[in-house]
Amino acid sequence: MRDIFEAELTQLGDNLVQLSERVNTAISAAGTALLTADVALAQQTISEDDAIDALARDTDDRAVLLLAQQAPVATDLRVVVSTLRMSATLERMGDLAQHIAQVARRSYPQCAIPEPVLPVFKALHQSSVSLAERLTRLLETRDLLEANAIERDDDIIDDLHHDTFSALLNPNWAGTTQETIDITLVGRYYERFGDHGVSIARRVIYLVTGTDIAHV
Amino acid sequence: MRDIFEAELTQLGDNLVQLSERVNTAISAAGTALLTADVALAQQTISEDDAIDALARDTDDRAVLLLAQQAPVATDLRVVVSTLRMSATLERMGDLAQHIAQVARRSYPQCAIPEPVLPVFKALHQSSVSLAERLTRLLETRDLLEANAIERDDDIIDDLHHDTFSALLNPNWAGTTQETIDITLVGRYYERFGDHGVSIARRVIYLVTGTDIAHV
Repeated sequence: MRDIFEAELTQLGDNLVQLSERVNTAISAAGTALLTADVALAQQTISEDDAIDALARDTDDRAVLLLAQQAPVATDLRVVVSTLRMSATLERMGDLAQHIAQVARRSYPQCAIPEPVLPVFKALHQSSVSLAERLTRLLETRDLLEANAIERDDDIIDDLHHDTFSALLNPNWAGTTQETIDITLVGRYYERFGDHGVSIARRVIYLVTGTDIAHV
Repeated sequence: MRDIFEAELTQLGDNLVQLSERVNTAISAAGTALLTADVALAQQTISEDDAIDALARDTDDRAVLLLAQQAPVATDLRVVVSTLRMSATLERMGDLAQHIAQVARRSYPQCAIPEPVLPVFKALHQSSVSLAERLTRLLETRDLLEANAIERDDDIIDDLHHDTFSALLNPNWAGTTQETIDITLVGRYYERFGDHGVSIARRVIYLVTGTDIAHV
């Protein structure tokens, strides 16, 4: 019985890593599509969100089945409940990547992000990809150094997000209203990547150490 | 044993209704603060988000304890798992209300929403309050007519959200960049209220009927 349980728990963890890998790919592709006005890549990213949703659903179904059949307690229960939460968070990150790809697609053949703020969005893209890669490694290895680095990535993202507003509110800003709207929304999506990443990092810290810093 | 379980399940449901009531109050207060530039009400709404977070945490703790101590299966398990999800969604709606109140506070003594789009945001406020009130009633009564009406409120919110972009992109739009940013963000927060409301409505439909329309 315990062997089956361990195998199912491992499978659940593998599912979460797979989900994280797919989200990682989506974030990377959406950002590239945005920054290079690549409409085919944007379209592909939008289409692939269904697979992320399906994998999140499968993960949830496995977690609920595990609760029903094995009635885990203590740490095992915490792992299963946390998996349910992390899968919802990853699914949401996939939605945000899809939103970024939609902005890229709507603006095509133009780049949604005009020249003056392109460096800020390149940096947001890099930090978000870094954060997503760390998330996958964190879920694979439970190495808490990754969790700490995710918090740092989030700080960088927050600063860059602030920079997007500074650029828009600079008297020299000469973009169109559509550009202002797109920058505001896309900046917000990147900020949310950071928040979601930190939320998962803190859940893993809690699972590994028993210390809840999510609510500090 | 079954009696204790039933009592705990009822308590869990009561917690969720209380959480929904608080979120309802926050959405109503945040919108009023925004539309009337009431900085005291904005501040109060921002402060009260801690209580929402604490109640969501308490609800989650009870749900996990119930899983550990009672090992529910079938419908009972679905109720407990759904409660975990709905509490996270309600907590997030509280955050969004707090964000709206923060925009109201930052703009004070000016109203963040300029005259030309004030009617659209009044309508967004009304539909969101309607949706939040329905959510509370739905969680109390499980009356699926409320769930259907929540979907309709969300459709109205989506149309109004679209109207905010139409106003911004109209050649006559003469607002400042800060106003464009605020309208874009606040419009987005209202749109998310609708999405979250629908997500909860579909979970309740699933609990009551066993039909999953969340993934249709």
